[in-house]
Amino acid sequence: MTTVDLNSDLGESFGRYTIGRDKDVIGLVSSVNIACGMHAGDPIVLRNTVRAAAEAGIGIGAHPGYPDLQGFGRRDMALSPDEAYCYVLYQIGAADAFCKAQGVRLNHVKPHGQLYNTAAKDPKLSQAIAQAVYDYNPDLVLFGLAGGCLIDAGTKLGLRCAQEFFADRNYTADGTLVPRSLPHAIITDEDFAAKRVVRAVKEGRIVCETGQTIPICADTICLHGDNEKTLAFARLINQTLQEEGIEIRHP
Amino acid sequence: MTTVDLNSDLGESFGRYTIGRDKDVIGLVSSVNIACGMHAGDPIVLRNTVRAAAEAGIGIGAHPGYPDLQGFGRRDMALSPDEAYCYVLYQIGAADAFCKAQGVRLNHVKPHGQLYNTAAKDPKLSQAIAQAVYDYNPDLVLFGLAGGCLIDAGTKLGLRCAQEFFADRNYTADGTLVPRSLPHAIITDEDFAAKRVVRAVKEGRIVCETGQTIPICADTICLHGDNEKTLAFARLINQTLQEEGIEIRHP
Amino acid sequence: MTTVDLNSDLGESFGRYTIGRDKDVIGLVSSVNIACGMHAGDPIVLRNTVRAAAEAGIGIGAHPGYPDLQGFGRRDMALSPDEAYCYVLYQIGAADAFCKAQGVRLNHVKPHGQLYNTAAKDPKLSQAIAQAVYDYNPDLVLFGLAGGCLIDAGTKLGLRCAQEFFADRNYTADGTLVPRSLPHAIITDEDFAAKRVVRAVKEGRIVCETGQTIPICADTICLHGDNEKTLAFARLINQTLQEEGIEIRHP
Amino acid sequence: MTTVDLNSDLGESFGRYTIGRDKDVIGLVSSVNIACGMHAGDPIVLRNTVRAAAEAGIGIGAHPGYPDLQGFGRRDMALSPDEAYCYVLYQIGAADAFCKAQGVRLNHVKPHGQLYNTAAKDPKLSQAIAQAVYDYNPDLVLFGLAGGCLIDAGTKLGLRCAQEFFADRNYTADGTLVPRSLPHAIITDEDFAAKRVVRAVKEGRIVCETGQTIPICADTICLHGDNEKTLAFARLINQTLQEEGIEIRHP
Repeated sequence: MTTVDLNSDLGESFGRYTIGRDKDVIGLVSSVNIACGMHAGDPIVLRNTVRAAAEAGIGIGAHPGYPDLQGFGRRDMALSPDEAYCYVLYQIGAADAFCKAQGVRLNHVKPHGQLYNTAAKDPKLSQAIAQAVYDYNPDLVLFGLAGGCLIDAGTKLGLRCAQEFFADRNYTADGTLVPRSLPHAIITDEDFAAKRVVRAVKEGRIVCETGQTIPICADTICLHGDNEKTLAFARLINQTLQEEGIEIRHP
Repeated sequence: MTTVDLNSDLGESFGRYTIGRDKDVIGLVSSVNIACGMHAGDPIVLRNTVRAAAEAGIGIGAHPGYPDLQGFGRRDMALSPDEAYCYVLYQIGAADAFCKAQGVRLNHVKPHGQLYNTAAKDPKLSQAIAQAVYDYNPDLVLFGLAGGCLIDAGTKLGLRCAQEFFADRNYTADGTLVPRSLPHAIITDEDFAAKRVVRAVKEGRIVCETGQTIPICADTICLHGDNEKTLAFARLINQTLQEEGIEIRHP
Repeated sequence: MTTVDLNSDLGESFGRYTIGRDKDVIGLVSSVNIACGMHAGDPIVLRNTVRAAAEAGIGIGAHPGYPDLQGFGRRDMALSPDEAYCYVLYQIGAADAFCKAQGVRLNHVKPHGQLYNTAAKDPKLSQAIAQAVYDYNPDLVLFGLAGGCLIDAGTKLGLRCAQEFFADRNYTADGTLVPRSLPHAIITDEDFAAKRVVRAVKEGRIVCETGQTIPICADTICLHGDNEKTLAFARLINQTLQEEGIEIRHP
Repeated sequence: MTTVDLNSDLGESFGRYTIGRDKDVIGLVSSVNIACGMHAGDPIVLRNTVRAAAEAGIGIGAHPGYPDLQGFGRRDMALSPDEAYCYVLYQIGAADAFCKAQGVRLNHVKPHGQLYNTAAKDPKLSQAIAQAVYDYNPDLVLFGLAGGCLIDAGTKLGLRCAQEFFADRNYTADGTLVPRSLPHAIITDEDFAAKRVVRAVKEGRIVCETGQTIPICADTICLHGDNEKTLAFARLINQTLQEEGIEIRHP
């Protein structure tokens, strides 16, 4: 049976600040990536989010990011690989503490924001992240941009990897994302996007920006729950996949 | 054979800031309490300190504190028990991540600074801390002030506890520390202090501020390595115990 | 003509986190207290909020708090008076920088959250805060709980002070707030509350929890804009005061 | 009379962490750049450092940096110009608060670490920094790398600028610093370095790495007081300049 994972970034609230519609999104996905307190999240939010995911019986992942709460981990920071290794390891351990206390296991790690983006094209950073994951627990699944450096680094270490496909982003002929600065970066036709996801999952192919059909790996697809609009799109993707007989489950 | 544990707070450096003579102290103790990044320490320092302790083959403990780097965890903060639970659990997991990566096990948890002091007299805070330790791993040893609330809380949960004795502090007749605000709070005669430690360990008794002999529990003794003077005192304690045939080992 | 100030806490968003309906509330008040980055707010939010207040032509105040973003400045912290002095001075300067850049002047200072609450009953903390305000600029107005220690401390230094009255809180016979832990702490009848505000402003008297009429000082009244309900109450207070011919303006 | 400014970065301690030999260095310089709490320093350290500089009667400057205490402001961060503007303005105001309380005036602004380095070659970042300085107070002096973008940006806005020369660094033929990665980046012959400083100040020329004589601007020279060795070099520079009849004073 064809399967795919749906993942979402959760637990990004902090102190008195609430962000994201975690409760709504948790019913639509098979994996959650939980912020670990460096770019977002705090120990109380982390505990609550792990508990909610455990109750939903879905895959729990750590979502480590840059140590930059003010920038939400979206500003690039020139970390050395050694710093990245230590920051990622720290955050994995912190997230896993709440899994242990909850009696569930940590399933995967997905870097957040600019750490994710930079890792996708930086082999040294990717190697450091993958090593941290491996050193913590070689059974963890590593999530990264399909075809990016992080997947390479994880594969080399023998980690199981899940390649991530973006449902609402256009791709170039060589399989990378069309930069957000370009007008056609985002796919606005949601029905088209949902159908494209199905094809990516079933056939491993999509039509890219040039009109060519290119191979793509879609082990996991990221859904967002920031607002009503992204939630509606998440529901559409979830429903379309089910209608197509694709099983939604975490790797 | 009579045994005692000698412990010290390590890994309190942060970023470019160095504090403590960790390398000197590590050879004198059987346990280290490593800062976890909230009141002191950072992921790189944590990694390096765990590695050094692993190489020395001594007991490794997490040393969680209040989330107050600026105050070094020494200013009281009105945390709810639930917040304290989550903060402590978070820090234990973060510290343990580096133990896992190093292939060693985390042995104990000792709260830091004002979290330690407040826990010693606050049953609810103590219960929260002990529960976090227990939920993470019921085999961990909980370090707390001899006779304080944290020891009670840990004991009730079935945790192994190590009662801490202070070599350089005077005690009241009811076994609590003479407050630092009083002139005779600190024992300045180091030879007297060293002999008192031996008696505390061997007989479970010391002479308190009134001249009375009181019972005291001394499972573990805290040594400091901030400067040449505290290091000299640490060496004296270590040497005196050995000369008395007391084995220094972690619980 | 009878006058009163209406104030509100603004600029409490941080990074990607948004909190409060600042745009809605800014039209209802004559003073705003802007978070300075320690318990809430960041430099970008601070700039934007000062700019919006400057455009509205209302009184701009610094709203310094404890250095505890995770606790939103609502957890008590055992700061020494010297630390409080330096933290408050720092935050006033930071806020004023954006006033200078905007070409407007900083008008007042109101401590936030637990710093406000503790100052109201702690003379030493109040003295430190008042001194920081005075040392920065003796022309600043100091906002504090009516009848509290901060007002005393400011008055002694010769600062102009604005005593704050709470529209939705019940008072004890000696003029202090009924603690939130008691069931009648909050006034839920909004029309009653609005009429009580008018009497407090015009006559300097209110009926307290015992039914007695007590004197009260109401130079400024705090309004909240967290949600639709508090905004509706803020509009009611604003409108009732205007209907009663009371001029709303900052001190 | 020929004059030059000697400056040093001070107030970089934080909480219980002490760094730098501020007391020793303060007697050797005519200007100090004081950390403002983002990359280093805290409100108490800031107050103490401003006070010490005020007592010494030397020029006081704000030393704003990236919001990265863990990296000491030495890791590049991808700030937008707008973020840089707000961060710098915030830090200037915070530092100036302590000047006001001390009854002295803030004289200059010098960016710290990687903010300084990146500004030297990034016109947009430089423009944002210079605008923040100008908007706060157009009488402030802006310190930047000699010949770098920040000096250009400040000059365009009409700010007085002080071009900084590095006594211990080699220069390329086009007047930029030889990168630290190259073996001859640092000048280790201290007497040669001291003589070179004198020539730079008196004649505006130095011999660069190729052996060519190049023009250089040396309005201010940065001295370090991290340890005994850098302090000895600072004393040598100070003494040599005095022996050569060059007046040491802030711009």
